[in-house]
Amino acid sequence: MEVPVGKKNDKKSKKDKKSKKSREHVPLVRIGVVDTMFARYDMGQAARDELAACAGYGDTFTVIARTVPGFKDLAVAAKNLIEKDGCSIVVALGMPGSAPIDKQCAHEAAQGLMLAQLLTSTPILEVFVHEDESDDPKILASVFENRSRKHARNAYWMLFEPEQLRRRAGQGVRQGFDDAGPLTFR
Amino acid sequence: MEVPVGKKNDKKSKKDKKSKKSREHVPLVRIGVVDTMFARYDMGQAARDELAACAGYGDTFTVIARTVPGFKDLAVAAKNLIEKDGCSIVVALGMPGSAPIDKQCAHEAAQGLMLAQLLTSTPILEVFVHEDESDDPKILASVFENRSRKHARNAYWMLFEPEQLRRRAGQGVRQGFDDAGPLTFR
Amino acid sequence: MEVPVGKKNDKKSKKDKKSKKSREHVPLVRIGVVDTMFARYDMGQAARDELAACAGYGDTFTVIARTVPGFKDLAVAAKNLIEKDGCSIVVALGMPGSAPIDKQCAHEAAQGLMLAQLLTSTPILEVFVHEDESDDPKILASVFENRSRKHARNAYWMLFEPEQLRRRAGQGVRQGFDDAGPLTFR
Amino acid sequence: MEVPVGKKNDKKSKKDKKSKKSREHVPLVRIGVVDTMFARYDMGQAARDELAACAGYGDTFTVIARTVPGFKDLAVAAKNLIEKDGCSIVVALGMPGSAPIDKQCAHEAAQGLMLAQLLTSTPILEVFVHEDESDDPKILASVFENRSRKHARNAYWMLFEPEQLRRRAGQGVRQGFDDAGPLTFR
Amino acid sequence: MEVPVGKKNDKKSKKDKKSKKSREHVPLVRIGVVDTMFARYDMGQAARDELAACAGYGDTFTVIARTVPGFKDLAVAAKNLIEKDGCSIVVALGMPGSAPIDKQCAHEAAQGLMLAQLLTSTPILEVFVHEDESDDPKILASVFENRSRKHARNAYWMLFEPEQLRRRAGQGVRQGFDDAGPLTFR
Repeated sequence: MEVPVGKKNDKKSKKDKKSKKSREHVPLVRIGVVDTMFARYDMGQAARDELAACAGYGDTFTVIARTVPGFKDLAVAAKNLIEKDGCSIVVALGMPGSAPIDKQCAHEAAQGLMLAQLLTSTPILEVFVHEDESDDPKILASVFENRSRKHARNAYWMLFEPEQLRRRAGQGVRQGFDDAGPLTFR
Repeated sequence: MEVPVGKKNDKKSKKDKKSKKSREHVPLVRIGVVDTMFARYDMGQAARDELAACAGYGDTFTVIARTVPGFKDLAVAAKNLIEKDGCSIVVALGMPGSAPIDKQCAHEAAQGLMLAQLLTSTPILEVFVHEDESDDPKILASVFENRSRKHARNAYWMLFEPEQLRRRAGQGVRQGFDDAGPLTFR
Repeated sequence: MEVPVGKKNDKKSKKDKKSKKSREHVPLVRIGVVDTMFARYDMGQAARDELAACAGYGDTFTVIARTVPGFKDLAVAAKNLIEKDGCSIVVALGMPGSAPIDKQCAHEAAQGLMLAQLLTSTPILEVFVHEDESDDPKILASVFENRSRKHARNAYWMLFEPEQLRRRAGQGVRQGFDDAGPLTFR
Repeated sequence: MEVPVGKKNDKKSKKDKKSKKSREHVPLVRIGVVDTMFARYDMGQAARDELAACAGYGDTFTVIARTVPGFKDLAVAAKNLIEKDGCSIVVALGMPGSAPIDKQCAHEAAQGLMLAQLLTSTPILEVFVHEDESDDPKILASVFENRSRKHARNAYWMLFEPEQLRRRAGQGVRQGFDDAGPLTFR
Repeated sequence: MEVPVGKKNDKKSKKDKKSKKSREHVPLVRIGVVDTMFARYDMGQAARDELAACAGYGDTFTVIARTVPGFKDLAVAAKNLIEKDGCSIVVALGMPGSAPIDKQCAHEAAQGLMLAQLLTSTPILEVFVHEDESDDPKILASVFENRSRKHARNAYWMLFEPEQLRRRAGQGVRQGFDDAGPLTFR
């Protein structure tokens, strides 16, 4: 598309294009974080806070953030973070509502995130907190904070410390609530 | 396709092709608006009215409108607005009916809009008002008007003022009804 | 595929290929009509009858017809009508049965038609009459006839008279049963 | 992929590649038949028996058979029968179980077959017999045999005798059970 | 993508790229195994144990293993095992939970695995054990172990001994529980 698009007008993306051509330096790894106006908690902030606490932040890797209206808008935004902004992984955060139609919309949003991953061959971590996971706003808020942070950390591990995932294989690891732990065979 | 297709016979699209080759001038940004005969409210008019009230209308950006039979026809029309008419974003408006089969059809229509976005890497804002969102025709009509306008405004923001979205991240913003507002953690 | 395929052995498609290369004349616009053996009404005949009554039939545009076993076979047939037979639009007609599994199959068939549209950037009008839309065979037959004809007319309008659709935007237009009409705001 | 894969080691596929390059002879049309270990009836045998009774078997057309673990494995196998083995159509046979999760898996398997068709522009006839279509194993077995044979015949017709399908349009034709027959309008 | 990605830093994938260019030796066939932290059993270990017991392990074929956070992350990981790591088949292992939302997520994960297969034309065996398949943790653990091993064996058969599958066609073969066996017609 030759038309100028507002959200790509930041200076970084222009520099990127330049660096791709000249290949003068190895660019920082970029982690994308995309969240929504619809959610009732600033999930993107939680994810960015966690990433800012990871080793190499600002040095080995950087974070590119976007906000879209609702969770159905996450997929194409995540795809563009990968294709146009050069992100190696994306954390996509949203809050499906509690009505039946919201469940269907969440399904469509999730299918979109799945498809975006497969079309880009790049992981997009879906971080959905369903509004009805708890009636208590405090508990729900803690689920928002915890799950957003845990999946941001997972994204970091997937890029830089995959052995952290390998050693937890089959261990019933959870995000948002306590780990379920492994079953025992004998 | 070499066959002449009626809806592409308007002069603009011919000029566009020319301008792509010669690149004599930067074309206006185009926002697509596609609606249906099936809906019981002129959602497209509401969206176009809102866009006409945005800064730069007719100058920085213009609107291209299409009408299709029903909401399942929105996806390919939106894709063509992007690919053939050069739209940078599309607002797709429809009204799913209240019968169970209508819910399934809405799901298929929404999946189509999701896929169209991912195949074009371009946002398409799905604006669906379900016929059973209210029993009161007056309230329903206000939902039609408000949601269509709010999403048209969102489309404008996504192209020209992304910071409007960023500052509302996690604030429980809604279209059609009042905002839900953010949860508080403490 | 280099293998000879029976259904492509008709003389028309051979002529088409020739005309594409030599471009000696502007070919007729083609409208595809695909129906099924499974349906309990000759929906394809109704659609073809309607198209035969449209201005320019046989002169400006022509109709190419196919029959497949069931409604799940419509999508790839419609795609081939577009890609191999050069149709500018397709009317796809089928009858989902009344059992729960039939609803799921209808969903899969509809998703296929959606995908076929998006992969070809060409409209395919899904004309499904569900066997349980009426218990009265006479009423059901009239729904078959009316909906097949109305959507065939829509296909014609989309190609040749898009203003017919524009002026009916948001008017609650229906196919098969009476129009629902527009809501009023005030 | 440069790695040697066991199932492609048969001599035929090697000959095919050769013939594609030299184009010394028109290869036989190939019909693919893929079935599963999971099904409780040898559906592939029934389909192959029917095809062996069709005119031109072994002369005009030949059959290539594959077996996969379960019905979710049918789609990629069918796609490979088309893309790597040169089949012009595929008959894909499977038996979804009776538990709710089986219905969901059948849905996924069917969506896969739909997608495989659209990605290859080649028909794949889905022949599913649901384990709960009858409580009587004898009746169920007859459904397996009849539906597998009828769809194998449909595949043959689609390639070599499309007029057989055309003349049955809208006639309520069924596979597995008796035909439903057409509705009458008057 | 030019950015360095942690999980591709192992020496093997670098050697592979080299061998693709020089084609000095036929590389080992690779079987991918991808599992999750979410599952409550080390399914990947079971699959790898089974493959290690197959003829030619380490000689004719080798195994490449990955762990991802949850089952929705399996699809893109499997696709990358095929595209970037050169696997000829992948065993994808996960455990959907027992809540309704988990069923929907399992559906999305399964659709992703289906799509990944079709986009790569390569089989990915979905090995899902639903947490509610048994209330008894011992039985559930045995289902995990048995199903993971059986499908790992299926993957091996598909590559190296397809006749093992052919001779079991329609025999009601199961993984995790006992075989259902074939129906009898007479």
